[in-house]
Amino acid sequence: MTTGAQALLKTLADAGIEVCFSNPGTSEMHFVAALDHEPRLRAVLTLFEGVASGAADGYARMSGKPAATLLHLGCGLGNALANLHNARRARVPLINIVGDHATTHVRFDAQLQSDIETVARNVSPGFVRTSRSSAELCHDAADAIAAARGLPHQVATLILPADVSWSEGASACSVSAVPAAARAAAGTIESIAAAIRSGAPGALLLGGSVLREEGLTAAARIAQRHGLRLLAETFPTRLERGAGLPAIERLAYLAELVQVQLAGIEHLILVDAKSPVSFFAYPGRPSELVPAGCHVHRLVEADEDAPASLIALADALGATHTAPPLQAVQRPSCPRGRLNAAKVCKAVGHLLPEHAILIDEAITSGLMLGAMTAGAPRHDLLTLTGGAIGQALPNAIGAAIACPDRPVLALVGDGAAMYTIQSLWTMARERLDVTAIVFNNAAYSVLNVELDRVGAQPAGQAARAQLDLGEPRLDFARLAQGMGVHGVRADTAEAFVKALRYALDMPGPHLIEAMIPESLGGAKRKVLPWLLRSLPRLPRSLQRTLKARIAP
Amino acid sequence: MTTGAQALLKTLADAGIEVCFSNPGTSEMHFVAALDHEPRLRAVLTLFEGVASGAADGYARMSGKPAATLLHLGCGLGNALANLHNARRARVPLINIVGDHATTHVRFDAQLQSDIETVARNVSPGFVRTSRSSAELCHDAADAIAAARGLPHQVATLILPADVSWSEGASACSVSAVPAAARAAAGTIESIAAAIRSGAPGALLLGGSVLREEGLTAAARIAQRHGLRLLAETFPTRLERGAGLPAIERLAYLAELVQVQLAGIEHLILVDAKSPVSFFAYPGRPSELVPAGCHVHRLVEADEDAPASLIALADALGATHTAPPLQAVQRPSCPRGRLNAAKVCKAVGHLLPEHAILIDEAITSGLMLGAMTAGAPRHDLLTLTGGAIGQALPNAIGAAIACPDRPVLALVGDGAAMYTIQSLWTMARERLDVTAIVFNNAAYSVLNVELDRVGAQPAGQAARAQLDLGEPRLDFARLAQGMGVHGVRADTAEAFVKALRYALDMPGPHLIEAMIPESLGGAKRKVLPWLLRSLPRLPRSLQRTLKARIAP
Repeated sequence: MTTGAQALLKTLADAGIEVCFSNPGTSEMHFVAALDHEPRLRAVLTLFEGVASGAADGYARMSGKPAATLLHLGCGLGNALANLHNARRARVPLINIVGDHATTHVRFDAQLQSDIETVARNVSPGFVRTSRSSAELCHDAADAIAAARGLPHQVATLILPADVSWSEGASACSVSAVPAAARAAAGTIESIAAAIRSGAPGALLLGGSVLREEGLTAAARIAQRHGLRLLAETFPTRLERGAGLPAIERLAYLAELVQVQLAGIEHLILVDAKSPVSFFAYPGRPSELVPAGCHVHRLVEADEDAPASLIALADALGATHTAPPLQAVQRPSCPRGRLNAAKVCKAVGHLLPEHAILIDEAITSGLMLGAMTAGAPRHDLLTLTGGAIGQALPNAIGAAIACPDRPVLALVGDGAAMYTIQSLWTMARERLDVTAIVFNNAAYSVLNVELDRVGAQPAGQAARAQLDLGEPRLDFARLAQGMGVHGVRADTAEAFVKALRYALDMPGPHLIEAMIPESLGGAKRKVLPWLLRSLPRLPRSLQRTLKARIAP
Repeated sequence: MTTGAQALLKTLADAGIEVCFSNPGTSEMHFVAALDHEPRLRAVLTLFEGVASGAADGYARMSGKPAATLLHLGCGLGNALANLHNARRARVPLINIVGDHATTHVRFDAQLQSDIETVARNVSPGFVRTSRSSAELCHDAADAIAAARGLPHQVATLILPADVSWSEGASACSVSAVPAAARAAAGTIESIAAAIRSGAPGALLLGGSVLREEGLTAAARIAQRHGLRLLAETFPTRLERGAGLPAIERLAYLAELVQVQLAGIEHLILVDAKSPVSFFAYPGRPSELVPAGCHVHRLVEADEDAPASLIALADALGATHTAPPLQAVQRPSCPRGRLNAAKVCKAVGHLLPEHAILIDEAITSGLMLGAMTAGAPRHDLLTLTGGAIGQALPNAIGAAIACPDRPVLALVGDGAAMYTIQSLWTMARERLDVTAIVFNNAAYSVLNVELDRVGAQPAGQAARAQLDLGEPRLDFARLAQGMGVHGVRADTAEAFVKALRYALDMPGPHLIEAMIPESLGGAKRKVLPWLLRSLPRLPRSLQRTLKARIAP
């Protein structure tokens, strides 16, 4: 006889799901036991559920396929929630499997009993289901898989009571194929084409699925042919970039900069992207960042095929044969001397291998990363889609498992790294080719910026202490060693480059801790001049505008 | 003018709330800035929200007062959820403050936007409120404080939009005093007294607030006078114990053992405790553990004064002047030779200082802790009330802040320690007198037991690998050092004793990593004989019963 768990694993494997990122407890023991009967499903153990969910997100971004998670009741789901939020915002497919008490046990309100569905709704608004019997389990699982895979992709949560898992009489189900997504309606394409043909200043804002070569190329053809600007959302799920691909300007994190980027645009065409809004609200400043009078057009709905629609738009605009401008090969020189955040980014740009997967959660320290790697060999960039800190290290696990032949570099701030530092152990256990680069500036730097921006000045000692990670200073090389990962500290550019060369040459995982000054530190910090110096891409005239507008 | 945040902090401080365990983000920057205006509120920074919530739990257990947390949106709340669950089950007062986007910003669905209330309901079923304006904020806060403090205590969640925090025109509110709780109804006391007087075999099962000296003494008088057994719930919030206090037998974690403990009881009197149920359900085994035909009596409702009611019951039973049996002074000898889990517990019993706070999250390795410390000098024991792993290290932070003059010892398994390992940094930063003892047996030991118990045998390699933490083996001494905590490894009993003596003599924090074999390891493990050997407290006749019943 087949248990619910055995049939569930067969259903998952039959549907092509190959990996389960897990942190099981007692209620998941039958699922765990069933792993021995289903060798097609690789179970990757994590020490903390946020690692499992972030790994499933990274896996989906790089493979295009859902992984499963295996979590232990409401508390395990809570621990996984932040990275499930990032996955939701990344719009990746993910099957979240949460074990629960046996259906007969719920009414006793035992210690671990809690309302799992209420928590799950936060990240799985479209699909939360508690399976009620072994007979129904695989149908429920098939529905969850179909929900996750359909457009828009989503995090589907299946709650699995222990007795549904252990009872016999279950049988696996097949999952219906994902229906082909439709293109944008002809009328929509035509009206957007007309707006573009009008010749008014316009931009294409790309997001989601059109930030890969196919979409980027179609967009770049249109932009080239019709003089549009080409913009990408601030935090892409996966951006293909580097030499030989069309270059694209990402919208900035800071709302003030986005307003500068969008100034003068009369038509903004959204392609699988949202209309730009401020990441946070600030007193007296607008949340909407689109200039007054600008027309916002949306090429596709969430369930439509964005790349195909963009190609159709290029066709409608006669741009199919336009040669798109492509990024030239260009690497920065090798940095020297005392280490700082920009030199770390420069070294990464200097050495980045072809087909690398670059994960950026270095919120302030990574500011120069885009510029420094723009002309590096072709690579993928994954970013903090949902703003929930602790994404880069888990994402790196999933990306490395999805793409075992590609080097993965995860750049992460010290504050961010600590949320899911347990990731390092899974990297070591699975022998993943990941190089984690931790910027140790002993501060929540971005909050020093934000404390000023929200107008909460002047901040005294008690407030500043909340942003300070300097006492004691974390030692990430030791933390890595404590989890079986080769870890080194670098204080100079030379030492960092040497460590990075070694890490890229030798099988991973590795961790390099870059000891850098807090660029934004000091009581009289001037955020704006620093930003302006750090964004050489902005034309001088825009720098002047920006300076006049927000730093009088 | 006073901002919402400033008035909120004044309201908290006026109400006697002295500590806020925090992990803030941008939306909490005005709260952070307001800290400089309210020196009565001590903000304790954590690197992960689960540390903040677990610390607030530990603080409340030892001080009897609520602390505040400060969390960043739905994702921060998610990270805090597991330890908030433990706090909910511990029935401690706690004010959970969750920053949110500005009310005007919510409709833009920016990256970090999510449904916070749905998550909060999981741990705050009794009080979740989103404050709508600065004018209302302090009334909302006062309601939250009153809700948390009232009986039964609870985790009250106040959601604080950024603009409610930053807007001016707020003023602090005073919080109404907690109304005195009533005693149990006279009729209830009389009917329970009659049951006890009947002379039928009975037991008092104590929980919650009656596991401290006052309640224990009253219960022990009754038990002594009327020949009742005295039992404590499995996972007490705070148990006062040691030489000179009435001893009490805790219900076991394993349902099979609880059935043995309760066998033959005809009257079970619950005093601030729940009727015993199995922690998890197991195929073919009952969830309810009370013997058939046993009458279950409940002395108090959740909003009644349990210690006073127990004293009234003692009075009704003529036991007020009965001398309760008290635990004799008795320490185990100093262990020697190769280290194992029992020897670690023995060393703790050998050296435990008076008034220590002992926190036990060593699920399998701590099995001997109760027996080994029973006759140690008077101390408090805090346990895993909600079963959500990752409680001990954060609890230790809160306990040490609540009781700066008392040594805190946190015993924790390797698997459990990793969920909230970031706690060590806050211990170092706040220079807390905590000694963390990590049992490194390179396994999720309890799951090895559970895998057998749920009947999921025979387990193959894939399943066993999910419970194995041996490859690579974690190095907790290094992890401690990486977070600024003095950390050492001990392989022998002599080395462990030396390290523990040093840790107890010198200001903390310290971490001692006890390298022990996996007691339950091996393909042919026999759980039951090991349990029987480990529980010398059980009479031989009961051991035989147990063996016959569950290990045929």
